[in-house]
Amino acid sequence: MIGTERLPQSADSQLASHIFGFIEELFPICRSITGDGLRQTLRHVAARIPLEIHEVPTGTQAFDWTVPREWNIRDAYVSDSQGRRVIDFQKSNLHVVNYSVPVRKRLSLAELRDHLHTLPEHPDWTPYRTSYYRDSWGFCLSQRQLDSLPDGEYEVVIDSSLEPGSLSYGESVLAGESAGEVLISTHCCHPSLCNDNLSGIAVAAFLAQALAARPRRYTYRFLFIPGTIGAITWLSRNEDAASRVRHGLVLACVGDTGPFSYKKSRRGNADIDRVVLHLLKHSGRPYNVRDFSPYGYDERQFCSPGFDLPVGCLNRTQHGKFAEYHTSADNLAFVNPDALAATLRFLLEVFDVLEQNRSYLSLNPRCEPQLGRRGLYREIGGFPDAEVRELAMLWVLNLSDGKHSLLDIAERSGLCFDAIRQAAGDLLKNELLMPLQLEERI
Amino acid sequence: MIGTERLPQSADSQLASHIFGFIEELFPICRSITGDGLRQTLRHVAARIPLEIHEVPTGTQAFDWTVPREWNIRDAYVSDSQGRRVIDFQKSNLHVVNYSVPVRKRLSLAELRDHLHTLPEHPDWTPYRTSYYRDSWGFCLSQRQLDSLPDGEYEVVIDSSLEPGSLSYGESVLAGESAGEVLISTHCCHPSLCNDNLSGIAVAAFLAQALAARPRRYTYRFLFIPGTIGAITWLSRNEDAASRVRHGLVLACVGDTGPFSYKKSRRGNADIDRVVLHLLKHSGRPYNVRDFSPYGYDERQFCSPGFDLPVGCLNRTQHGKFAEYHTSADNLAFVNPDALAATLRFLLEVFDVLEQNRSYLSLNPRCEPQLGRRGLYREIGGFPDAEVRELAMLWVLNLSDGKHSLLDIAERSGLCFDAIRQAAGDLLKNELLMPLQLEERI
Amino acid sequence: MIGTERLPQSADSQLASHIFGFIEELFPICRSITGDGLRQTLRHVAARIPLEIHEVPTGTQAFDWTVPREWNIRDAYVSDSQGRRVIDFQKSNLHVVNYSVPVRKRLSLAELRDHLHTLPEHPDWTPYRTSYYRDSWGFCLSQRQLDSLPDGEYEVVIDSSLEPGSLSYGESVLAGESAGEVLISTHCCHPSLCNDNLSGIAVAAFLAQALAARPRRYTYRFLFIPGTIGAITWLSRNEDAASRVRHGLVLACVGDTGPFSYKKSRRGNADIDRVVLHLLKHSGRPYNVRDFSPYGYDERQFCSPGFDLPVGCLNRTQHGKFAEYHTSADNLAFVNPDALAATLRFLLEVFDVLEQNRSYLSLNPRCEPQLGRRGLYREIGGFPDAEVRELAMLWVLNLSDGKHSLLDIAERSGLCFDAIRQAAGDLLKNELLMPLQLEERI
Repeated sequence: MIGTERLPQSADSQLASHIFGFIEELFPICRSITGDGLRQTLRHVAARIPLEIHEVPTGTQAFDWTVPREWNIRDAYVSDSQGRRVIDFQKSNLHVVNYSVPVRKRLSLAELRDHLHTLPEHPDWTPYRTSYYRDSWGFCLSQRQLDSLPDGEYEVVIDSSLEPGSLSYGESVLAGESAGEVLISTHCCHPSLCNDNLSGIAVAAFLAQALAARPRRYTYRFLFIPGTIGAITWLSRNEDAASRVRHGLVLACVGDTGPFSYKKSRRGNADIDRVVLHLLKHSGRPYNVRDFSPYGYDERQFCSPGFDLPVGCLNRTQHGKFAEYHTSADNLAFVNPDALAATLRFLLEVFDVLEQNRSYLSLNPRCEPQLGRRGLYREIGGFPDAEVRELAMLWVLNLSDGKHSLLDIAERSGLCFDAIRQAAGDLLKNELLMPLQLEERI
Repeated sequence: MIGTERLPQSADSQLASHIFGFIEELFPICRSITGDGLRQTLRHVAARIPLEIHEVPTGTQAFDWTVPREWNIRDAYVSDSQGRRVIDFQKSNLHVVNYSVPVRKRLSLAELRDHLHTLPEHPDWTPYRTSYYRDSWGFCLSQRQLDSLPDGEYEVVIDSSLEPGSLSYGESVLAGESAGEVLISTHCCHPSLCNDNLSGIAVAAFLAQALAARPRRYTYRFLFIPGTIGAITWLSRNEDAASRVRHGLVLACVGDTGPFSYKKSRRGNADIDRVVLHLLKHSGRPYNVRDFSPYGYDERQFCSPGFDLPVGCLNRTQHGKFAEYHTSADNLAFVNPDALAATLRFLLEVFDVLEQNRSYLSLNPRCEPQLGRRGLYREIGGFPDAEVRELAMLWVLNLSDGKHSLLDIAERSGLCFDAIRQAAGDLLKNELLMPLQLEERI
Repeated sequence: MIGTERLPQSADSQLASHIFGFIEELFPICRSITGDGLRQTLRHVAARIPLEIHEVPTGTQAFDWTVPREWNIRDAYVSDSQGRRVIDFQKSNLHVVNYSVPVRKRLSLAELRDHLHTLPEHPDWTPYRTSYYRDSWGFCLSQRQLDSLPDGEYEVVIDSSLEPGSLSYGESVLAGESAGEVLISTHCCHPSLCNDNLSGIAVAAFLAQALAARPRRYTYRFLFIPGTIGAITWLSRNEDAASRVRHGLVLACVGDTGPFSYKKSRRGNADIDRVVLHLLKHSGRPYNVRDFSPYGYDERQFCSPGFDLPVGCLNRTQHGKFAEYHTSADNLAFVNPDALAATLRFLLEVFDVLEQNRSYLSLNPRCEPQLGRRGLYREIGGFPDAEVRELAMLWVLNLSDGKHSLLDIAERSGLCFDAIRQAAGDLLKNELLMPLQLEERI
């Protein structure tokens, strides 16, 4: 597995079950883009990492948007003439269209149908539907459930409220040596859905925990935000912080067993794009890469032309490419503890490369220095191939001309970043290189 | 068929037969690079579209060239000892080498052979040959015809004249809003050959007719000119107009049933190149593209280094790639009415995109604007895929940063130009975009 | 064969045997990076071409390196208890690890083994090993030889000396019209190995001979140097000359029957890279190209970042890609006279293109000039294809805009350089082009 070497083998399955345990903890909560479910979720995150929970009042302007009324729901059901609940929010919060207005009325099945959502192609699954920005209500249920409803009159109750309140989001900042920031953002507005996106929330929380324990060149900012409106609200209140973002990732759907899938930033060749691709290429495992498009998660906002931040999006199976997406089948059985842990390890690799990447200047630019005399080169000559260690040193020396970073050198040489970084370390120790000032001095 | 939607279905076969009818009308005329056949052809064009016919006197200098003497021919034949015409210009004007000097003499078959041209590999076809710039004469005939000639003496008569006169060409200008010009050029110096290039003449004439009825951002200039010397003569007299050419196409061999073949301008990435390729790619049909080379039609002159105009060349089957090229088999049976009409429709698409292509600036560059509130986005959320309409709007918003035209956006998004243009229109109506000044203000 | 036309057919096999003969002459000599074997080799070269032999004293600083003590060897053997030589330097100089310190002692087989080198995977071959920069000694032998040695005591004698002296290298300069230089470098430090690198030495010597007889735009500098330390020493003493290098090639392993293999310069798109690739592509034969890497021959030094010279490396089969590399099997039977001659011819082609490559300006940039009137274009028109000669002229005219060299034109047109050069010559004669100043005026 990618990055396994960074964590003691024994810790591995423990870590996997811890991340999965956090998902189990969050699963039952009925989240939305505002409301107590979201707030409660943030408090669970705050129990694990230092997290500032922000509350932005309804009606606050955020660029072209306005923070909506807060939605809360206590109960909801459709019951038949005998008073039996045939669709019941208590059984799954997916049964109610998210952001449904309060309703209490009696309807015929025919009238009710206009408010029912099913997935005919997956007759046992309940879809997830939302109606954030239009006053509306509805229920989601399986096709089979719908087919079993007899004609007759039904009572519909949605005990929800849509009232002035606030939009909540969580922010965790790990200060680093430089003001330059790494942004990790994950949406936390979906109700009982696991891959999308309890996997993102859980991995982000454990990532923050792991990074907190390491020395950091960059400052890391974690956002736990409701999708779209959350990102827009954060950006509208944090243009300064946004201007300091050097690298960023949106995390979503990172818990299934599919190969990694990476969506490049709008820039297409940002360091984050290059690092993720470099590691995926050297992982020896299948992966997918796609160019930026303005449809997806909150990279839409971070990569809007007025910001154009170097923020990509990491998934395992991409949203919309797995049948379980936005259905009741995206449940606890769909996410895999080992896959979650492997995602975390991969992310640690990514940030490790970003932390370590820098440029050096060869102090011996004319011809190679004599490595053998310094014990850096084997003493008996004549063998057909160089060792990777030797080759990596030769590459670093050849390209450390002030125009190439270690990542550039890794890319051009075809060697993995780790070999290049180790070579640079050996050469530095031998005073054959000098580090160039980091660009990051804000 | 490409562009079918732009013309009422019923008009379609009518259009096809009209274009073909024009070719039938022009077919019998014996054209050359000067002379009455050419002049007569231009008058046929002038009967359909406003056309200025220019006459440039013999001896006029045109850069490195001189307008040649005018060639006219009344009759020509080879007759046998019984006075029977065995090769007869009256049967096909291809029988005489174009620009043959006058001749009247008796020759043995052996002597005559030096002046006879055949196509041994197509024994029933007569080749088309010219001798514009050397005083010479000759006859073209089928190999079978030649093989049937008995030894003996023959009388040779070419009743032609090569005298001071003028070179004729036709020019039709459709003024547009801007001084920036679109150049459409087609050669009209070939005698009874249909695909090369009565197809070009006919399609250009109908194209001018269609564009005359539309609002035009660009000024369109149509040239009906004899190949090479015509283009050179026009350029030498119109350097100013040439400097205003923003996009251009040479039309030739556009009537056969082969797929479109496009030859890029010398620049290789001019808008005309990109638009033609974009439409071909989205046509769902096979097509060919080739890079510029200085061999071909009058794009040779338009793309000479002193002009380097953004002029490509559109064909169906490329000259020299169909056996019938420059032979008697390039006749009325070889061109297809529907293919002619489809070429016309494709050209209308091309100029439509060029007319519509421009850059906008998003008035909401930081984050997405709220499309749902404006009725531009569906209200129930949670579906896995965006609709093309929505996706196109997101792309236009994301890339309308002042650096991308609609064509750039279409290319990067992979969506067709039409979807992008419609999205821009919807966003403009909603005051989410502002148009940038067109570059064209000469 | 590539370039056959440049030498009279009859001279061809003569040339092949001459080059091979030179290799036979050099084969027995025990070369190293210093010492009499190297010196003697240079004198053999000097017998064929004017060669200055430089001697650089032990202890001289060369950038990060120091010229080592001089190594000379008179005899070496391992003998058994009966006094029979079981490993004998007199039979092959490969038997002694190159640069072994003097030794005279008695050892058990077990103790001796630590100093023995074999190739288990090729049990009949003796490997070539060196220990230039650590005081050490050893013997090389075949695995079969080793296996046949009975236990017991052996006498080990290496009658060598490592003493202050000098490092020798040879330099041959053929002055040209301009100060701009072409560097041809080949290492000459290997003992009895043929492809690596007597082939390089022999081909370089014959190349110098052939170029001496030609007019030269460039100055050609041939280096016959010990690997690594020789190149570094030369560069440290000749920074001025290095700054005048416009094109360069390292020659090694050019005598086997494999296809050509070219390693690009660090710049990757230097003229030398483009010319070699152009000729290989048009050769109609298989070939290999690889990007620069800092492992290989002396291009490592020439392409170090402080020099970054446009120097590539030409091989037939690449070092380390043939099993015989650095073994006793790289002997006279492994190199092929015809392959050596073909390498020489190919190099003459390469330098011919570099010599001939320049830029012209069309004196007729607006439209084509009338080639027919100058007898440069066939007079009867109408044929489907242009002749290569005509096409080449059209390309030269079209691209001679001051921004394209003949090589650029050859690359873009897909025609071979020779056709382009001939076309330029014809156009020049007809005063249709003017030569642009060569960049080379130092």
